[in-house]
Amino acid sequence: MRLVIEAAEPGRRESVALWEAGGRRLSEAVCATTDWPPFARAGLDGFAVRSADTAQASPGSPATLRVAATVAAGGLAPADVAPGTAVRIMTGGAVPPGADAVVMLEQTADARVGGQPAVQVRSAAVPGQNIAPRGEEFRCGSAFARPGELLRPGHLALLGTFGYAHVPVFVRPRVAVLATGAELLPVEAPLAPGRIRDSNSAMVAALVAQHGGVPVQLGRVPDEPGAAAEAIAGALLHCDLIVTTGGVSVGDYDVMASLLRSIERSSAAAEGGAASEEAGWQATAPPQADLLPQDSRLLFNKAAMRPGAPTSAAIVSGKLLLALSGNPGACFVGFELFARAALLRLQGVTEAAARPKQATARLAGSIDKGSPHERFVRARLYTGNGTLYAEPLAWGKSSMMASIPAADGLIRLQAGPQGAAAGEIVEVIVL
Amino acid sequence: MRLVIEAAEPGRRESVALWEAGGRRLSEAVCATTDWPPFARAGLDGFAVRSADTAQASPGSPATLRVAATVAAGGLAPADVAPGTAVRIMTGGAVPPGADAVVMLEQTADARVGGQPAVQVRSAAVPGQNIAPRGEEFRCGSAFARPGELLRPGHLALLGTFGYAHVPVFVRPRVAVLATGAELLPVEAPLAPGRIRDSNSAMVAALVAQHGGVPVQLGRVPDEPGAAAEAIAGALLHCDLIVTTGGVSVGDYDVMASLLRSIERSSAAAEGGAASEEAGWQATAPPQADLLPQDSRLLFNKAAMRPGAPTSAAIVSGKLLLALSGNPGACFVGFELFARAALLRLQGVTEAAARPKQATARLAGSIDKGSPHERFVRARLYTGNGTLYAEPLAWGKSSMMASIPAADGLIRLQAGPQGAAAGEIVEVIVL
Repeated sequence: MRLVIEAAEPGRRESVALWEAGGRRLSEAVCATTDWPPFARAGLDGFAVRSADTAQASPGSPATLRVAATVAAGGLAPADVAPGTAVRIMTGGAVPPGADAVVMLEQTADARVGGQPAVQVRSAAVPGQNIAPRGEEFRCGSAFARPGELLRPGHLALLGTFGYAHVPVFVRPRVAVLATGAELLPVEAPLAPGRIRDSNSAMVAALVAQHGGVPVQLGRVPDEPGAAAEAIAGALLHCDLIVTTGGVSVGDYDVMASLLRSIERSSAAAEGGAASEEAGWQATAPPQADLLPQDSRLLFNKAAMRPGAPTSAAIVSGKLLLALSGNPGACFVGFELFARAALLRLQGVTEAAARPKQATARLAGSIDKGSPHERFVRARLYTGNGTLYAEPLAWGKSSMMASIPAADGLIRLQAGPQGAAAGEIVEVIVL
Repeated sequence: MRLVIEAAEPGRRESVALWEAGGRRLSEAVCATTDWPPFARAGLDGFAVRSADTAQASPGSPATLRVAATVAAGGLAPADVAPGTAVRIMTGGAVPPGADAVVMLEQTADARVGGQPAVQVRSAAVPGQNIAPRGEEFRCGSAFARPGELLRPGHLALLGTFGYAHVPVFVRPRVAVLATGAELLPVEAPLAPGRIRDSNSAMVAALVAQHGGVPVQLGRVPDEPGAAAEAIAGALLHCDLIVTTGGVSVGDYDVMASLLRSIERSSAAAEGGAASEEAGWQATAPPQADLLPQDSRLLFNKAAMRPGAPTSAAIVSGKLLLALSGNPGACFVGFELFARAALLRLQGVTEAAARPKQATARLAGSIDKGSPHERFVRARLYTGNGTLYAEPLAWGKSSMMASIPAADGLIRLQAGPQGAAAGEIVEVIVL
């Protein structure tokens, strides 16, 4: 996780129209461009008054004030509120100088004094009542959101308020999605004996979009390292991250495993060469002619986790390549742990916030078997009486798909000989 | 809530490419088009064997089997696995007839028997070991997702698996967004005394998009019922739902309140007229010339809730009109309660599932004041030791925006003279 997060650095920036900024990630801090509210505002419809004028008011003995003016929202009173007078004001209107309280319309009655419009106030107003003072929520210049933050609907309200017709955001990362495996048929093909359709590409594309990226479908390549390397080389030209599925196991035809082994050998040779140079020796042989660019570097080859043990990662021409398992369940977990973190980092999310979102929950069912590696069990989350429960889903094997749509969490179990009992507190990753 | 949900019926349907189906809502049930897995599949790389051949195998005394063939993923064995033989098989490969177990590659060693390739198996295989039987996850014809369901990444894996190159979904509802209020400036304008910028339109548009709709920005109209009615009439031609903000209070210039009052009068007149006809009388006067179409019908005028008490709803030319408060906090809550439900219904979500997503949580701070109406307090949700906590956010007044971006829940408090104490179990709506 650390290696992946360090390898994925915040990417390019752009400016988008406010209307298009929802769901994007900020590339710069955004600040209040004025105090907010920008003026003392009426919190409801009624009358702006001097509270002292109403000190003795009661339902039986209302205070009668001359109505000097009416302020519509967006308008201004022609003059200050003088003693003995009131100004009719609407929700959101600017409270005129002189007034220090707004009396709710429902606590007043129309009246006339000397033929002029007046209002009866039936209760004593408290200074400040129903007025939002200038700057109550924000001081001019204070930041209200920071780089990497996801722009939610509430942020858009603030951006609009402070005049951000355009918003600085990170460009949506382009993510190449490549499926490997001679057994894979296109989705539209009829099934054939021994073959299955490519289901990972659509799932990974949807995961990419869900986490702010733009999926770039490279399709399927057969089990030939050359074909996979060629597809990857093409993607390196216009994508920010490469996610492959399949071909990472120990089988004879595992194309991504072959490519990653070639990087490993090449890296080892390069390190050996560097050591040789230090010792003043000549490197005896050029590194093996590799299929991936020579500056490729393996980050990790397999991960101590289940499912997804074959998950591997490398840097290729400066870009992160994540090789996920071809088993759908393992592919899903591998994406949620590693690819999501990389995608968030590319969009400027802090290293800490790019990690999976963790919570604790009470286990709603038992998990019988232990595991030699840390385990991530697909789960449904729900609450009861203030407790968050995580129910392990059936059909949770790495090859299985049935539990993926229903999973809104992953129960995280440490390696060990035992599983976990119902009722135990467990860590969960919230999806 | 019930009135809104009943008024919004599932809308038009379309078929979209699988790659574009993520985040959409299904319009028809989708089914397994084959048993899944479609054949007995190897769960890992190794050798397909007859378990009886390995019954006596141990590390010290391995069973030696002749390797009759190799099955790549996607390939088929040329013949059945005969007694005394094994077939090399890759993850996902079709287990050949005759074999009833797969032995992991790591538990075997290469060997030769009579000059031919063979394998030593170091432990007894159990029948069924490392094999996913045909139809284990799905039976052909069984539904795996239903109308109205949100298509998550895991659904796309299943759709791809079962050959759905195109997916039946509900059309994204078009939602007209109209801001009312003479005080509103466009976002790009400099502030002027007494004026504020329109922040609700951008927030509402982002909320619409978040819940599957397409926002159609109608912009701002001044405080004239005719102008608002004209904008609404235009939107009725090409939108499925109309959301307005502002103008629903009791102020003299509240344009939406005026329009809704005119519907109310008109409905009352029509009902009176009908009664007259039953009694054989002539209707004495035509209903008042209304600004909204004559078939308009008020659903509710104000709601017993805080914030958002002025929230109102009507049916106009058969389409739902939701008039939300202009106060940003109230607008947000009104949307999450009513407009979200309507949007989900338009996308075929069941009436029950269209309601807000409720949970229970432990209150992490006290809420001091009671309220004469049911109350929805913006909150941050987090867990600790298996408990879900809801922390009421500061800056929670209806006019305030500062707490909207941070809110991932709304604490739901019943009307009553008291608030709620820290540690109490409360209902929350998960946003």
